[in-house]
Amino acid sequence: MKIVVQKYGGTSVGSVEKIRAVADKIIQKKKEGYSVVVIVSAMGKTTDELVSLAKAVTDNPEPREMDMLLTTGEQISISLLSMALISKGLPAISYTGPQLNIKTTDLHQKARIKDIDVSKIMEALEQNKIVVVAGFQGVTENNEYTTLGRGGSDTSAVALAAKLGGNCEIYTDVDGIYTMDPRKLRNARKINCISYEEMMEMASLGAGVMHYRAVELANKYKLPLYVGSTFSDSQGTMIQDGGAAEMEETVITGMASSLEDMQVTVLNLPSSVSGLYRLFGRMGEKGVNVDMISQMITEDGKMYVSFTAPIEELSIVEGILQQWQEEAPEISWEVNTEIAKISVVGLGMRTHSGVAAKVFKLMAENNIAIKIVTTSEIKITFAVDRVHEEKVIDLIGNAFGLVV
Amino acid sequence: MKIVVQKYGGTSVGSVEKIRAVADKIIQKKKEGYSVVVIVSAMGKTTDELVSLAKAVTDNPEPREMDMLLTTGEQISISLLSMALISKGLPAISYTGPQLNIKTTDLHQKARIKDIDVSKIMEALEQNKIVVVAGFQGVTENNEYTTLGRGGSDTSAVALAAKLGGNCEIYTDVDGIYTMDPRKLRNARKINCISYEEMMEMASLGAGVMHYRAVELANKYKLPLYVGSTFSDSQGTMIQDGGAAEMEETVITGMASSLEDMQVTVLNLPSSVSGLYRLFGRMGEKGVNVDMISQMITEDGKMYVSFTAPIEELSIVEGILQQWQEEAPEISWEVNTEIAKISVVGLGMRTHSGVAAKVFKLMAENNIAIKIVTTSEIKITFAVDRVHEEKVIDLIGNAFGLVV
Repeated sequence: MKIVVQKYGGTSVGSVEKIRAVADKIIQKKKEGYSVVVIVSAMGKTTDELVSLAKAVTDNPEPREMDMLLTTGEQISISLLSMALISKGLPAISYTGPQLNIKTTDLHQKARIKDIDVSKIMEALEQNKIVVVAGFQGVTENNEYTTLGRGGSDTSAVALAAKLGGNCEIYTDVDGIYTMDPRKLRNARKINCISYEEMMEMASLGAGVMHYRAVELANKYKLPLYVGSTFSDSQGTMIQDGGAAEMEETVITGMASSLEDMQVTVLNLPSSVSGLYRLFGRMGEKGVNVDMISQMITEDGKMYVSFTAPIEELSIVEGILQQWQEEAPEISWEVNTEIAKISVVGLGMRTHSGVAAKVFKLMAENNIAIKIVTTSEIKITFAVDRVHEEKVIDLIGNAFGLVV
Repeated sequence: MKIVVQKYGGTSVGSVEKIRAVADKIIQKKKEGYSVVVIVSAMGKTTDELVSLAKAVTDNPEPREMDMLLTTGEQISISLLSMALISKGLPAISYTGPQLNIKTTDLHQKARIKDIDVSKIMEALEQNKIVVVAGFQGVTENNEYTTLGRGGSDTSAVALAAKLGGNCEIYTDVDGIYTMDPRKLRNARKINCISYEEMMEMASLGAGVMHYRAVELANKYKLPLYVGSTFSDSQGTMIQDGGAAEMEETVITGMASSLEDMQVTVLNLPSSVSGLYRLFGRMGEKGVNVDMISQMITEDGKMYVSFTAPIEELSIVEGILQQWQEEAPEISWEVNTEIAKISVVGLGMRTHSGVAAKVFKLMAENNIAIKIVTTSEIKITFAVDRVHEEKVIDLIGNAFGLVV
């Protein structure tokens, strides 16, 4: 039995017409000889509307009851999609997460899948049925309904495909993963093939379609993921081990840029291990998402620390620093909210040295100052003044072949 | 533990504001020392909207998938009501029919409750929680979701109250059962107390708030039912064994009238047992809902049969008669769609003779011809020309004390 798990997102089933079109796409796959399992998200804005209803009832809805509410969204779309398939003459059957015993942890709204009992699905597939499954949801040992949080339906699809030993196809409203958001880099190139690690880095930068969690799970099971458009036949992107083996020339696979961070520089810290620990320890306790960190110790033994964090956490950061200044009046700080944070990601960096040097040279030749920089094995992230964002994206995009 | 099961219909939870008001009403009952179980219907027009969605997908939605779709309606309202209760500081927990193992037959869309496992409810009540249960739904042995059809939520409430050994209160948008629909009988009187049999007769006439099925179930378990208004404190109606014992003077409890029936009179039938059987046998096979039947045999051995049936079944009835005429050309028929069917119901008829006579006398004094009449132990039904409907209602309403 050739099994394929297809996942259709909320915009793909956003109307009755689209549901009928998705049914046709599924039938096409079925005719190619596949046993098809379909994961569906809630229709269009349904989840948002349900959240609004809850917020109208109370500012602070109970997470368990929130899950009870939100799981209805997918239940509506699976039943409608099954009706559409049946009306087109194909046997189909829908199941909720609880019905399939998609067992999760009991952390409501952010549950994680523990195990899936696929016997019911296999039984239906053997009866030649298309099985339509509610994504994003599961059930605890105690029969309480749970949801999986952001990216949950993708995670449901990957988990089911891994368990069933089938292919996994994620259909959405874009036709694949691009080297960069095409709204930011004109002529950004569609990536034919990308590795799990690169995709995870790009996903954690908020770039491109897939959520970190689903890719991480696919990586764990070495399950190839196809990402493509619901309503177009153009070739999408494969996410798989090793990425694009045939394209060794590609050093940089993708790029992302964010205008949502600030750079904070703290001057005249006492130079000691505990100084750094105390600063970032307090940030952590207050839930500040510190990203890049850079430090320098001057000849007279004073320490400078610079870091980036989301602009929306400015008041928390300033509160921590003001409190600290009461104990150590010599410290001062500067905040720059006018930065752009640029990240370039590429598995090729592992084998191609000098990528950072090439980036620095490009910036220097164009008189663009790098405010802070950090590197990891397959990623370089740096900040520049916000006015330069467009120029930097253009320079790197062209220098590293990220455009068509 | 004093347990009460309260049921709130769709209009009672039709908006976020109403849900919050219902929460206050529940809290009031809780403060009176009751352990409260609440059954809720889907919000306002939700069920209608879901049905429209399904009909947009296909003219003929699969019943199983229809149930999958419709059960979301109550799941939304139970979660919102629980959130409202919790936000007001009371511990509450919602459960779907499948979660509570409300076991039903497997006839989708018209399932019947077989048994309820109340252990989960009892556990929550012992933890001092308010338990909010989705009405109208259940689950088969095979874990398939089902709905109970019309009047389903009332039936859920009665079944739960019977099983839990608690009181049962049905809250709706009217403040009780009236002697007649007040739109038809001005000054119709609210009934303080009515027997199961009377209520079943009135329910099957389409009169008054409660569905036949829920009353039938309450009668089976001799469970007193209270019917009252969600948003008013005025005294409602008790439905209980024996009705209003203290009011023996009341012979007639209620009245209903319908303009949706026609009278068909078939002339010159062969006078034989098989004649009647053949006529009504065919009607039954074709699903015609024959109500009143009256027959007469003339001196020359010909039979006249008159009966009533819904006007919307006219073409089916004529089809049957035309087919029969081919075999028996001597028969002919008349159809009168301009009748009003009036029913009076009262437990008092059992002990008070002469009710029918009193009705006939009233009609005769006012020159109103009775077209057909049938009587049962506690009901008299008769048809008059439609033009007399208002007059007849007024005459009987006043003669039998059905008005304030």
